[in-house]
Amino acid sequence: MLQLTDPAALREFVKSQKRLGKSVGFVPTMGYLHKGHASLFKKAAETSDVVVASVFVNPTQFGEKKDDYDNYPKDSQGDARLAESCGVNVLFLPKVETIYPNGQQVTVKVNEKTGVLCGKSRPGHFDGVATVLTKLFTIVAPDIVYFGMKDAQQVAIVRSLIDSFHFPIKLIACPIMREADGLAKSSRNVRLLPDERREAPELYKGLQAGCSAIRNGERNFDRIIASVRRYYELHLQSGVVDYVDVLNYPELKRVKDKMTGRIIIAIAVRYANARLIDNVTIDCGNKISEVEAQ
Amino acid sequence: MLQLTDPAALREFVKSQKRLGKSVGFVPTMGYLHKGHASLFKKAAETSDVVVASVFVNPTQFGEKKDDYDNYPKDSQGDARLAESCGVNVLFLPKVETIYPNGQQVTVKVNEKTGVLCGKSRPGHFDGVATVLTKLFTIVAPDIVYFGMKDAQQVAIVRSLIDSFHFPIKLIACPIMREADGLAKSSRNVRLLPDERREAPELYKGLQAGCSAIRNGERNFDRIIASVRRYYELHLQSGVVDYVDVLNYPELKRVKDKMTGRIIIAIAVRYANARLIDNVTIDCGNKISEVEAQ
Repeated sequence: MLQLTDPAALREFVKSQKRLGKSVGFVPTMGYLHKGHASLFKKAAETSDVVVASVFVNPTQFGEKKDDYDNYPKDSQGDARLAESCGVNVLFLPKVETIYPNGQQVTVKVNEKTGVLCGKSRPGHFDGVATVLTKLFTIVAPDIVYFGMKDAQQVAIVRSLIDSFHFPIKLIACPIMREADGLAKSSRNVRLLPDERREAPELYKGLQAGCSAIRNGERNFDRIIASVRRYYELHLQSGVVDYVDVLNYPELKRVKDKMTGRIIIAIAVRYANARLIDNVTIDCGNKISEVEAQ
Repeated sequence: MLQLTDPAALREFVKSQKRLGKSVGFVPTMGYLHKGHASLFKKAAETSDVVVASVFVNPTQFGEKKDDYDNYPKDSQGDARLAESCGVNVLFLPKVETIYPNGQQVTVKVNEKTGVLCGKSRPGHFDGVATVLTKLFTIVAPDIVYFGMKDAQQVAIVRSLIDSFHFPIKLIACPIMREADGLAKSSRNVRLLPDERREAPELYKGLQAGCSAIRNGERNFDRIIASVRRYYELHLQSGVVDYVDVLNYPELKRVKDKMTGRIIIAIAVRYANARLIDNVTIDCGNKISEVEAQ
C-alpha cells in the first residue's frame, strides 16, 4: 500500500491507473479507523479496480468545538494496518496547510438539508464537510466514492454536492453495520456503561417499530414519529432521546403531507458518555417494499 | 465549430481530445461577445490545442437585480460567428436547469477579496461567479482557463477558487484591450454621449498618473489614491468617480502599510448611461519594473 501526502503525487498515480483503464474508488475518512470504515474499504475493493482512502481530520467541520478537533483520536499505524488489510491501495495523508493553502478564502455552503437531524445542533458542520470533500474530490478525481448510511444526512448532502457541482462521480451508500443484537456499530459503543449497552439494542427496535407502522399502512409523519417515541418511552431507562424524525430521503424534508416514496426514520439518543445515532430507510411508494441500503 | 448543450457530450469530447494528448483551453462567457472576448479566444487558440468557450448567463451572480438578468443582451448567431472566427472549437450552451439541477442546494462562498472595488456594491456577486465557475470547471475539466484583466477582481478571486479547490487548471490573465486613445474596450462604451467619449481616455491617464507616482518613489497607498483622485478632479467634467483604490494584487488588500510587491490601481467612473471600470497593475517590489498583464 502506497502512503502519499502530496496531492500532485496522488493525482499522478490516479491518472496512471485511469490510463490503464482502471476504475478508481475513494473512501474519505478522518482516521482512527474501525469496522465501519473496514466495510467501506471492502465494498470499494469489490467494486473498484483501485482503492484510494484518505485520512484527514478536517478542522472546518468541528464548528466552535476547537477541543474536539484538537483531541480527535489518532492511530496512524493502526489505520495503515487496517486499510491495507481491507484492500486499500493508496492511503492519502495530506496536511491541513496543503488542503487549505489559503485558509478559508473560498468555501462551500450547503443551503438545504442541514437544518434537520444532527445538522440542527451542528451549525456549519456540513459546510465544512462539503468544503473538504470538494477539495478531495478534485484532487483524487475518483470514479466512485463510498459513504456509510450510518450518517444518512451526510450521504444525502454528498449527493447534493456531487449533483450541484457536476462531479463525474458515482456515490455508493453502504449499509449500516450492526452487532448481532442489532446495535449499529460505532466507535462510541465502547463508552456505554454495562446497563446502557444492554439497553442500546432497543434503539434499532424502536426504528423497526416505526417501519412496522408504515408497513401496516400508516402514512402520517407525526404519528410514525409518535410511535417510535412511544416505543422509547416504554423501553429506554438510561437513554435520553435527542431527536426522532421521519423525513423523505434523500430530500430530508416532508415532500408531501401524506408520506410517499423513500423515507428515513432517524434517531439520536444520549447516554452518560456517548450520543448514539441510528436510522432506517424504507420505500413506502406505491408498493411497500424492501428496506433499502440496510 | 461544435455547439453542445449537454454536459455529458462536452465531457466526452474533452476526454477524447485529452486521450490524443491535446491540451484544452476554456473561456467562460455570458455571451453577447465583443472584441474583449475575441482577444481571449485568440489567446486560447494560440496557447491551447483545443478551445472550449461557454455562453451561459448565470442567474446567481446578478444579486437582487432580477431585471438585469432578464434583460441581459443576447445574440446567439453573432456569438457563434465571432467564436468560430477566433478559433473556438466547441461552444458550450447549457440551460439554467442543467447547470443548477437542484437549484442552489450547494453553492460556493468567497470569504475574502469581495468587500472592495466593484464587489463592495455587489453583495453575493462573486459567490455566484465562483459557484458557476466551479460547475463549469468540473464539467469542462480544462487545462487552462482564460480571463480578462479588465475585471481584475474576478481574476484574483478565480485564482483563489482554483487554489482553494485544487483544480488542476492554469489561469492565464489576458491584458486589457484598449482603443488607440487608451480607453479600455467595453461593450458599454457605445452608451457614452459624445462629450463623455471625448473625456473617457482621461480615466486611463489618471491610472498612469498613479503609476508615475509609484515610479517616482511614492509608497504610501493613500497618497497614490489622492494623486489619482486629484487628476480626475482636474480632468473629468461629466464623469463621477465611484471609487479609486490602490491595493496589493492579487490579495486585494494592503498587505503592509508600506507598499511592496505587485499592486493594482483600480477605478470606476459613472457617466449618464454607463459605468466604466479600468485598472493597471504594477510591480513595485525591490525593483520598480514593468506593468504586468497590461
